[in-house]
Amino acid sequence: MAVYTHVDEDALSAFLASYDLGSILTFKGIAEGVENSNYLLQTDGGTFILTLYEKRVDEAELPFFLDLMSHLAAKGIACPTPIEGKDGKALRPLCGRPAALISFLKGLSVMRPDPIHCAEVGSAIADMHLAVADFAGARPNSLDLNGWRELAGQCRGKADSVYTGLEAMIGEELDYLARNWPANLPQGVIHADLFPDNVFFIGEKLTGVIDFYFACNDALAYDLAIAINAWCFEPDGSFNATKARRLMNGYKAHRALEPAEIKGLPTLARGAALRFLLTRLYDWINQVEGAMVRPKDPREYIKKMRFHQRVKGPGEYGL
Amino acid sequence: MAVYTHVDEDALSAFLASYDLGSILTFKGIAEGVENSNYLLQTDGGTFILTLYEKRVDEAELPFFLDLMSHLAAKGIACPTPIEGKDGKALRPLCGRPAALISFLKGLSVMRPDPIHCAEVGSAIADMHLAVADFAGARPNSLDLNGWRELAGQCRGKADSVYTGLEAMIGEELDYLARNWPANLPQGVIHADLFPDNVFFIGEKLTGVIDFYFACNDALAYDLAIAINAWCFEPDGSFNATKARRLMNGYKAHRALEPAEIKGLPTLARGAALRFLLTRLYDWINQVEGAMVRPKDPREYIKKMRFHQRVKGPGEYGL
Repeated sequence: MAVYTHVDEDALSAFLASYDLGSILTFKGIAEGVENSNYLLQTDGGTFILTLYEKRVDEAELPFFLDLMSHLAAKGIACPTPIEGKDGKALRPLCGRPAALISFLKGLSVMRPDPIHCAEVGSAIADMHLAVADFAGARPNSLDLNGWRELAGQCRGKADSVYTGLEAMIGEELDYLARNWPANLPQGVIHADLFPDNVFFIGEKLTGVIDFYFACNDALAYDLAIAINAWCFEPDGSFNATKARRLMNGYKAHRALEPAEIKGLPTLARGAALRFLLTRLYDWINQVEGAMVRPKDPREYIKKMRFHQRVKGPGEYGL
Repeated sequence: MAVYTHVDEDALSAFLASYDLGSILTFKGIAEGVENSNYLLQTDGGTFILTLYEKRVDEAELPFFLDLMSHLAAKGIACPTPIEGKDGKALRPLCGRPAALISFLKGLSVMRPDPIHCAEVGSAIADMHLAVADFAGARPNSLDLNGWRELAGQCRGKADSVYTGLEAMIGEELDYLARNWPANLPQGVIHADLFPDNVFFIGEKLTGVIDFYFACNDALAYDLAIAINAWCFEPDGSFNATKARRLMNGYKAHRALEPAEIKGLPTLARGAALRFLLTRLYDWINQVEGAMVRPKDPREYIKKMRFHQRVKGPGEYGL
């Protein structure tokens, strides 16, 4: 959570000359976003977030993300809208980085969501799944079964230093998922990272979904599986079935789930848990001395994976 | 520039229950302020900065700083106004830190000021000096000649690793200042840290002065000496006499300088340069591995000190 690239007023003025937004009233670096630099910008023309995409983001993929946000916003989804310059472009260089100006969304991330927040999130996921039906862009999910295998390989020999037996546990889970991963589920562009810090609320009402930089094509129900992991466990690791049922009901009220999606959910939830276990494990093992971002504890996701392994059927998720 | 203490929505709600500000609309950590954690908070009642005072700030001194801001704001100075809670208090604990809500000021720090910005700053300093005439609070300046001697002692044996000959240079300068420091100048509460990042502008107009956490009682003209060091040198180290003249004229247009203040300015400017040289040198020598704040290069102030040593008289500052 930091500003990696410092933008001074001269660079900002030159950048804003490509837009019709009037005078600058406020410009503040904000401690939000793990991978990019974000500024809050207020001008005569409104309030915006200025994002500079840092090295971990593949520049070639940025048009996909920005087009997706524009598409969703045009469909009425509460998400940031990229602002086009006078040249019709939303992406342009600033301080040596590709940068975009996006609309500012009011609201507050809720780190300890109530069941009502989970219901709102479920509905928002369904709305996004319906809204992407006619979206032309596509981006393969690099964090799929093959991607997980690759990450597991990169963690080999080091996983057990984090948790005894973890390497074997990961290997067995990969084998299980390869044999049981549900095929032929309805596909589409999914958010794929819908954690509480990426959703804004005012009170109980969802006001925004942000951070589409993991969006990709995959099974729609896998997005739900990620959200179950992100929203329905308590800080002590226990699973909150009420929150899961509210999340599922919120989703189903806007988009019906097919029988195969319901049946596949426990396996998708195991896959989602393994996905975040592996990326956290990789970041944990490869910590950079003096880095501004503290890696998250991968062991949280061992607990979650084990919960899903013991699940008897989709009913336990409120389906 | 970071957020040191994370405030979650539960803690924030509990804190805001002491105020009458309506619903929370936005809450974002901002990458501003080197020593404290700052959040931008928008509620039905307006936009505010929430500051959590971190360990380097002496809690006993906070009432002085907040009272000073209230006093200045009441006199029409464009500075943050502490917001009082229903109990009439502006200071209360949040996440284990003393915290205060202050009014939000629009504007943008100008890192490469034009002469017109310097004129505005000069006038604002004079306005503050007039406004504190009837301020009841007082705080001794711990970074005076004695404080500099102490810092120099703590850097002993290490200064020359930063710049060859620096230790002797500091010793001689301390001796010179002890012999020549102007006595009996008009005194008052000064800002004492009026760098470009502590002043906001919209276009050419000054809209706010922030960060009063070094404010203290000292010679009023010493505040001007600090501002000359902070505003009137170019990035290549050269002195911009036009900026200095504009700053001085901006000041004099609002408060007349006494002959002794004019005569003393070159020595005050040397002292101000030494003060920032010493604090930067101390921070440079005592860098913390993995700290979120990169210390500033003390050598910038060797150059500035040398400039002031060669100055023949106050005329070179536009007086």
